[in-house]
Amino acid sequence: MIRVGIIGCGRIGQVHGLSVEKNRACTLHAVYDPGEANARAMAQRFGANVAVSPEALFAETAIDLVVIASPTDAHEAQFLAAARAGKAVFGEKPIDNNLARAYATVQTLRGIGTPVMLGFNRRYDRDHATLQAEVRAGAIGRVQSMQLASRGPNSVPSPQYLRSSGGFYRDKCVHFLDLIRWISGEEPLEVVAMGSVLADVSVGEAGDVDTAAIVVRMQSGALAHIDNARRAAYGYDDRIEVFGTQGVIESQRLRSGNVMRIRDNHVCLDGLPRNSFERYADSYAAALDAFVEKLQGKAVEVPGIEDGLMAQVMAEAATLSAAQSRIVRISEVLAKL
Amino acid sequence: MIRVGIIGCGRIGQVHGLSVEKNRACTLHAVYDPGEANARAMAQRFGANVAVSPEALFAETAIDLVVIASPTDAHEAQFLAAARAGKAVFGEKPIDNNLARAYATVQTLRGIGTPVMLGFNRRYDRDHATLQAEVRAGAIGRVQSMQLASRGPNSVPSPQYLRSSGGFYRDKCVHFLDLIRWISGEEPLEVVAMGSVLADVSVGEAGDVDTAAIVVRMQSGALAHIDNARRAAYGYDDRIEVFGTQGVIESQRLRSGNVMRIRDNHVCLDGLPRNSFERYADSYAAALDAFVEKLQGKAVEVPGIEDGLMAQVMAEAATLSAAQSRIVRISEVLAKL
Amino acid sequence: MIRVGIIGCGRIGQVHGLSVEKNRACTLHAVYDPGEANARAMAQRFGANVAVSPEALFAETAIDLVVIASPTDAHEAQFLAAARAGKAVFGEKPIDNNLARAYATVQTLRGIGTPVMLGFNRRYDRDHATLQAEVRAGAIGRVQSMQLASRGPNSVPSPQYLRSSGGFYRDKCVHFLDLIRWISGEEPLEVVAMGSVLADVSVGEAGDVDTAAIVVRMQSGALAHIDNARRAAYGYDDRIEVFGTQGVIESQRLRSGNVMRIRDNHVCLDGLPRNSFERYADSYAAALDAFVEKLQGKAVEVPGIEDGLMAQVMAEAATLSAAQSRIVRISEVLAKL
Amino acid sequence: MIRVGIIGCGRIGQVHGLSVEKNRACTLHAVYDPGEANARAMAQRFGANVAVSPEALFAETAIDLVVIASPTDAHEAQFLAAARAGKAVFGEKPIDNNLARAYATVQTLRGIGTPVMLGFNRRYDRDHATLQAEVRAGAIGRVQSMQLASRGPNSVPSPQYLRSSGGFYRDKCVHFLDLIRWISGEEPLEVVAMGSVLADVSVGEAGDVDTAAIVVRMQSGALAHIDNARRAAYGYDDRIEVFGTQGVIESQRLRSGNVMRIRDNHVCLDGLPRNSFERYADSYAAALDAFVEKLQGKAVEVPGIEDGLMAQVMAEAATLSAAQSRIVRISEVLAKL
Repeated sequence: MIRVGIIGCGRIGQVHGLSVEKNRACTLHAVYDPGEANARAMAQRFGANVAVSPEALFAETAIDLVVIASPTDAHEAQFLAAARAGKAVFGEKPIDNNLARAYATVQTLRGIGTPVMLGFNRRYDRDHATLQAEVRAGAIGRVQSMQLASRGPNSVPSPQYLRSSGGFYRDKCVHFLDLIRWISGEEPLEVVAMGSVLADVSVGEAGDVDTAAIVVRMQSGALAHIDNARRAAYGYDDRIEVFGTQGVIESQRLRSGNVMRIRDNHVCLDGLPRNSFERYADSYAAALDAFVEKLQGKAVEVPGIEDGLMAQVMAEAATLSAAQSRIVRISEVLAKL
Repeated sequence: MIRVGIIGCGRIGQVHGLSVEKNRACTLHAVYDPGEANARAMAQRFGANVAVSPEALFAETAIDLVVIASPTDAHEAQFLAAARAGKAVFGEKPIDNNLARAYATVQTLRGIGTPVMLGFNRRYDRDHATLQAEVRAGAIGRVQSMQLASRGPNSVPSPQYLRSSGGFYRDKCVHFLDLIRWISGEEPLEVVAMGSVLADVSVGEAGDVDTAAIVVRMQSGALAHIDNARRAAYGYDDRIEVFGTQGVIESQRLRSGNVMRIRDNHVCLDGLPRNSFERYADSYAAALDAFVEKLQGKAVEVPGIEDGLMAQVMAEAATLSAAQSRIVRISEVLAKL
Repeated sequence: MIRVGIIGCGRIGQVHGLSVEKNRACTLHAVYDPGEANARAMAQRFGANVAVSPEALFAETAIDLVVIASPTDAHEAQFLAAARAGKAVFGEKPIDNNLARAYATVQTLRGIGTPVMLGFNRRYDRDHATLQAEVRAGAIGRVQSMQLASRGPNSVPSPQYLRSSGGFYRDKCVHFLDLIRWISGEEPLEVVAMGSVLADVSVGEAGDVDTAAIVVRMQSGALAHIDNARRAAYGYDDRIEVFGTQGVIESQRLRSGNVMRIRDNHVCLDGLPRNSFERYADSYAAALDAFVEKLQGKAVEVPGIEDGLMAQVMAEAATLSAAQSRIVRISEVLAKL
Repeated sequence: MIRVGIIGCGRIGQVHGLSVEKNRACTLHAVYDPGEANARAMAQRFGANVAVSPEALFAETAIDLVVIASPTDAHEAQFLAAARAGKAVFGEKPIDNNLARAYATVQTLRGIGTPVMLGFNRRYDRDHATLQAEVRAGAIGRVQSMQLASRGPNSVPSPQYLRSSGGFYRDKCVHFLDLIRWISGEEPLEVVAMGSVLADVSVGEAGDVDTAAIVVRMQSGALAHIDNARRAAYGYDDRIEVFGTQGVIESQRLRSGNVMRIRDNHVCLDGLPRNSFERYADSYAAALDAFVEKLQGKAVEVPGIEDGLMAQVMAEAATLSAAQSRIVRISEVLAKL
């Protein structure tokens, strides 16, 4: 039985709590949150203890696996402390919004050698995973182009969130920058990004964009389009299409149900999930399950610290590209590390 | 906290065990199965006790709700004993394959007055429930016709199962006979059924059919088609379409994923679920959840003993229709009770 | 060049005029209509002559092929006269609404030996034809059940039309009774039909039904459901599904376009074609093309007078079944001829 | 009756011949092709005369409308000559592959004032036109992003064709560069393009690319993705999606039929059209019909010489962007004219 401690009892922390509860090889041992009431409520819900500090949680010898679900600015210290305490670490991205610091942390974590997984949960979406496996098995031949669209949920984040998010490319697009490496099995060569404020002026006032277009050229020459928006009036809309020399494959947008109505001159189907938690509900548990299997010694590939770092490098290149209105080569960003 | 006892630790018993585990208002107290090893394994899986006999389970005062998941020939006695012990009863259909006996049991249960729900889980499929709610709200106007198709799984039952099943109309079609009452909110007037053995001769040798067509005329004149097969080479295929004076609504067949591939001259989507457990996975828990809400005093409509009885009456009419090659009026079957 | 004469310049006559115009092996020589203005307008539109009477048209030696698009009560005489004049005949069904007279006419036409095709245009719908070819090639194994739904257009016919139509089973359902023989390659054994008036009381007042359910058992035991309505609020809705031991195949309902919108909580596609002319636009020309190919000596199978007769026999059985509320064997109807 | 002359009797010339034949307000008067046999065959097929030279055709006073379907290098002279002869001109794009020459020609044509339409037939695809009309009517709010994918047919052009095509951006992508102006009603600000040779080395040997990704920023900040490939193993695959502040709309990829099969663990639909002629069959006639309506004085908007020029400017910017690996502003290209 793997005993788990969770740092952070907000929405995503609770999602991980549910994943632990569902996994019969795990048990939730303790939780920590700076808001004590939050911590107590979550502890009670899942039958766990409350740790008085992150340090106390890391010091708890009973705990095998630490889930880091705290705000981004706490990540680096907690990744390091948990790893140094000999825990396996399942952490939300990024390791740090400052790329140089993230790079240094990755070097340190590599030295420590404890298993670390980044929570790129979209890799564990059933349909995305089917697509990736088929693409990697050559089902569509050689990859020529990829389209990754993600829009939603139906409101933009608060100005505070936006200001601390690192910007749209680092905050959201990074998920899709990770996916294109994972799907194609290739490294990126160059990135171009353009952003606009079209849906909500508050986003622009916070110094961010709500609409972004990115193109990434991969080593083979394959070209990936990323079409992202912070908000979609109609819910949460993710879609991946990969075109290759032998065919095309798509992980289709999901609807919230499978009922069709025909009335007047319309055929109407159920709408989309409202947010990423609804859209990707099952993927969170699947991600944790994969890490647990890896810890049990199974040959399971999970997104590790190098994957997290490379996705950040790509996001850095996109941020630079958008700021300077030019194509940015990955080697340029890497050279600065 | 509602404490639950489950009679029967086979496949469906375990499905109910999972539903109890997921429902935070319930806890599984005890299980019984004539195969002691089965009972012990299930008890261990869910952290419950093993009852030495059904009687012992019914006598356990801690238990509030009994789930009857035993073979059909044990149902009648267990429904009655559980009810007489003051338990709420969630039982698999039918109350008894003999209609007269089922009728008498329903009269007795009505007298006892304990809450009883029949496990018509398809009513709790998210999409079927959306369809029903919209039809009942008048979204397609007055119902003119219904089509209910159900085929699968990909093998026929064993001859032993078939011989004790009461025949296809009572065993499987009864689910759809229940659905047409539930969807339309109307009672049936007459039934015609035709059956054939086309997929597997073993079904015919066991005295049953593997393919059936039923048409039911409802009170209003609405006409329902039921197209059922014991087996589908490609998995489990359920679909409901309701046509009315203002439109049509369909609960579409489900696929096991949402990936599309285009290769050569085909567009290929993921296939169908393999069996009813995969197809209706979520509905079992939703059915139990509904009963729990009802027991908690909420105004929730669940399929009760009268519904089970009327579905059986319709199945009896279908069986008679197929045997005698004639249209059978419901009043004729009711008159014999 | 095959020279064509068309009897009847109403809507369906003009559809055939267009088909002749599109077929490069044909030319429209003359048209006849009792309404002289109609005839003149159509003649002008297509650059054809006006015949002063059906007899004059049949007597025109230049004409090779006569298309009979007149009202039903004129069919029998015109089929016979055209055939006796040595013309190939492409005629709208039925040969005569009186089955005995139709039977006699078929015997006579068989003696004359001129090529005669019945205008069962649905056989020439691209998708229906794909379905039929695949089913006949064994792609889904042995046929177990068929579902044929047809509803629409969005208004019911006039009382006058209804009174002279022969009733819903002979007028509309007959198309689908023909299709089930064509798709399965089997003859029917027995028929049960139920009808209701649910959409428009004027249909009932004219002695007809607006909603019908038919089940036909074929020789092999395969069971066909026909779900027909005179009217659909949302347009013209045809769908065929055939289920067999190896799979299922569907000719899906058509939409009038391929645009999808997602707004609020709905995904909306374009609606359905408004009527059978829109829905089956291409099939009329394809039907004529097939007959022309047959006349040119190609090995093309077309629905002939025996097919028309058998569809009528089935419609007669359905009419009898609905009237007498019983299953009717095809042999019973055939025995009366 | 508008009398039409067609210059060029190749594939696209014959497509226009069919369009003229279908339009009841037009008649095909004469055709010209440098290959006399081609010209004679086409003239015979459509009942037209053969012109001995383009000049002879332009000099024919009976002709009202000239369709230019000749190779690209002949366009400029023929546009000018036809216009100077007072004919309305319907011409295939581009006016000239050399942008400066095209610009000069547009200035001259503007001075002459005869109606000129460029054959951007995709604007006349029923579904694309529905999408454009709804977007322009505000149905999805303010446009945030667009995705235009076009891949196919299933083989790459010959090296000779590629060498004279002006390159992928000018030859094919230009259609989609035109569409984004038409859909959004906005002018472009800047363009970035990346190209690769991934499907067929012969394309690279001819100095072209077979896979291209373009992003265009429009005046409002809306971002358009163009995902184009010279070849798709599975046919011809076009799709347009437009995302806005109120919703998303898609002109979906078309399939060549509407039959579905479920077998084993797959649901298979009909594949895609094989090439652009099949995919866009109806759009060619619709484009000509629109021009005819305009000539008849109706208020119909058609793609004119300025539209053709601006699409070329965008293609020039894309070509430059790909060559120099940088974002190119439209103003930079315009400044050189």
